[in-house]
Amino acid sequence: MSGPNWITEKSYHNTFSMGFKVKAHLHSEKSPYQQIDVFDTDAVGKLLLLDGKTMVSDKDEFVYHEVVSHIPCMVARSVKKVLIIGGGDGGVVREFVKHPEIERIDLVEIDERVIEVSKIYFPHCTSGLSDKRVRVLPQDGFAFIKKAKKEYDIIVVDSTDPVDFASGLFTDEFYQDVFNALTDEGIMMNQTENPFLDEWGIKNIYNNMRRVFPIVYSFNAPMLIYPGVFWTFGFSSKKYRPTDLNPNKIPFMTLLQRNLSWYNMDWHKSAFSLSNFHKKLIGQES
Amino acid sequence: MSGPNWITEKSYHNTFSMGFKVKAHLHSEKSPYQQIDVFDTDAVGKLLLLDGKTMVSDKDEFVYHEVVSHIPCMVARSVKKVLIIGGGDGGVVREFVKHPEIERIDLVEIDERVIEVSKIYFPHCTSGLSDKRVRVLPQDGFAFIKKAKKEYDIIVVDSTDPVDFASGLFTDEFYQDVFNALTDEGIMMNQTENPFLDEWGIKNIYNNMRRVFPIVYSFNAPMLIYPGVFWTFGFSSKKYRPTDLNPNKIPFMTLLQRNLSWYNMDWHKSAFSLSNFHKKLIGQES
Repeated sequence: MSGPNWITEKSYHNTFSMGFKVKAHLHSEKSPYQQIDVFDTDAVGKLLLLDGKTMVSDKDEFVYHEVVSHIPCMVARSVKKVLIIGGGDGGVVREFVKHPEIERIDLVEIDERVIEVSKIYFPHCTSGLSDKRVRVLPQDGFAFIKKAKKEYDIIVVDSTDPVDFASGLFTDEFYQDVFNALTDEGIMMNQTENPFLDEWGIKNIYNNMRRVFPIVYSFNAPMLIYPGVFWTFGFSSKKYRPTDLNPNKIPFMTLLQRNLSWYNMDWHKSAFSLSNFHKKLIGQES
Repeated sequence: MSGPNWITEKSYHNTFSMGFKVKAHLHSEKSPYQQIDVFDTDAVGKLLLLDGKTMVSDKDEFVYHEVVSHIPCMVARSVKKVLIIGGGDGGVVREFVKHPEIERIDLVEIDERVIEVSKIYFPHCTSGLSDKRVRVLPQDGFAFIKKAKKEYDIIVVDSTDPVDFASGLFTDEFYQDVFNALTDEGIMMNQTENPFLDEWGIKNIYNNMRRVFPIVYSFNAPMLIYPGVFWTFGFSSKKYRPTDLNPNKIPFMTLLQRNLSWYNMDWHKSAFSLSNFHKKLIGQES
């Protein structure tokens, strides 16, 4: 819908759109990197947009943030250092700080203004940033990752769509840099778009991941504010499969998952049993 | 998006919309019951709308039609008679006719014009209607169901949103009629809306189902053309749980699922391991 009371986002292929009825335009600024807007909406509460693209909402942020953090934490045998590329809203950090074994969480977000705006409008997302294990690094993720060698147990690529400068975050060259920055048992998590709207793009992303990682899996979770909602995520790993839960962490997670909004271990174990559609899409054998 | 080149549908709560870029308006007619339109779109191919609400598209019709049919067929110990209420596009029938054990499939669709229009534009959906086991009954589903007693092994309620006359398809009175029309081991399948956009409505639907059926489960599958995409479905049963697959049918399904686009038995068994969000929504115990 157009008009002053609705904001819409088209899929990046320009064939499909989603709209949110607006109650108020809370914030608008142009940072050195992008246009930052926050709206209050009826359907999803507060909604953050970067250059007109939906990024985070009150309503569904827990889904993305929980799945990219707790899945790899439950698989890795030891998690000391975590890197998040992008994710200036802080939601992924908030989930990782729930794991006491983690000693360091590096958040590499090029645009400090995204972090500051999120602190104002999404304090429930940024609450983890004050944890003393967290380093917020306002740097370019591409440059940062090239310098890290076998340093991180988990790396989350919290990217936008594969267009403009973010398209580099979906190449095999970038995945090789992530691979090199991971420890010998390291895991990379990334969002891999909507398959109904970008079948070819997803095939390409998974082919690139497989050129670099020996173990590549996919799962889905809904993101109401992303065009197409049915969202795929990648799990790429050097050693462990996503259904190899770390038995030592089960007692801890049995307690933690009672307070989570999406993740639980039964869901985690089931999430990798894909539909025929999803398997065919990523070229997974039956 | 508005304008002549996009069609949009709002969620029935009027807070969220989805739009499809249109290539051509292929069909428009007013039947005795509703406005029927078919568009050709970039994102989802041909798209059928009834009174402006998205019903079926080339792109994603297989998801809905496979999950509401093959799940109950794999659970029921014997399936002789099946009833589909609504579903004039024929897609659900097409999936049931793949099961040789079924002797009769009754399709009760009040609007014959939906069937005729679907035959023109969605022949891949209506292909099962010519099967000699299929009876197409252009009748009112509410009246039809009241007359049936312990007759059907599976009943699929292929309904629109719970507004206007379709709202009656979500009441405990209607579920009681369905219960009475089912055999002692019968199963009801129904669509139960998007939880992000209608939390209260879904709680109400599941409470109504539980007032009538001893076994009520939920799962989700994506429907790209429905507002919110993350779609929930109900499995209500007199005897068997949805993860109790009929062991006698496993050899048959092992072959059949190779030719299905969404359903496979691993997905089926996993689909009922819900996220905390989904469990809380429907009041399912952890």
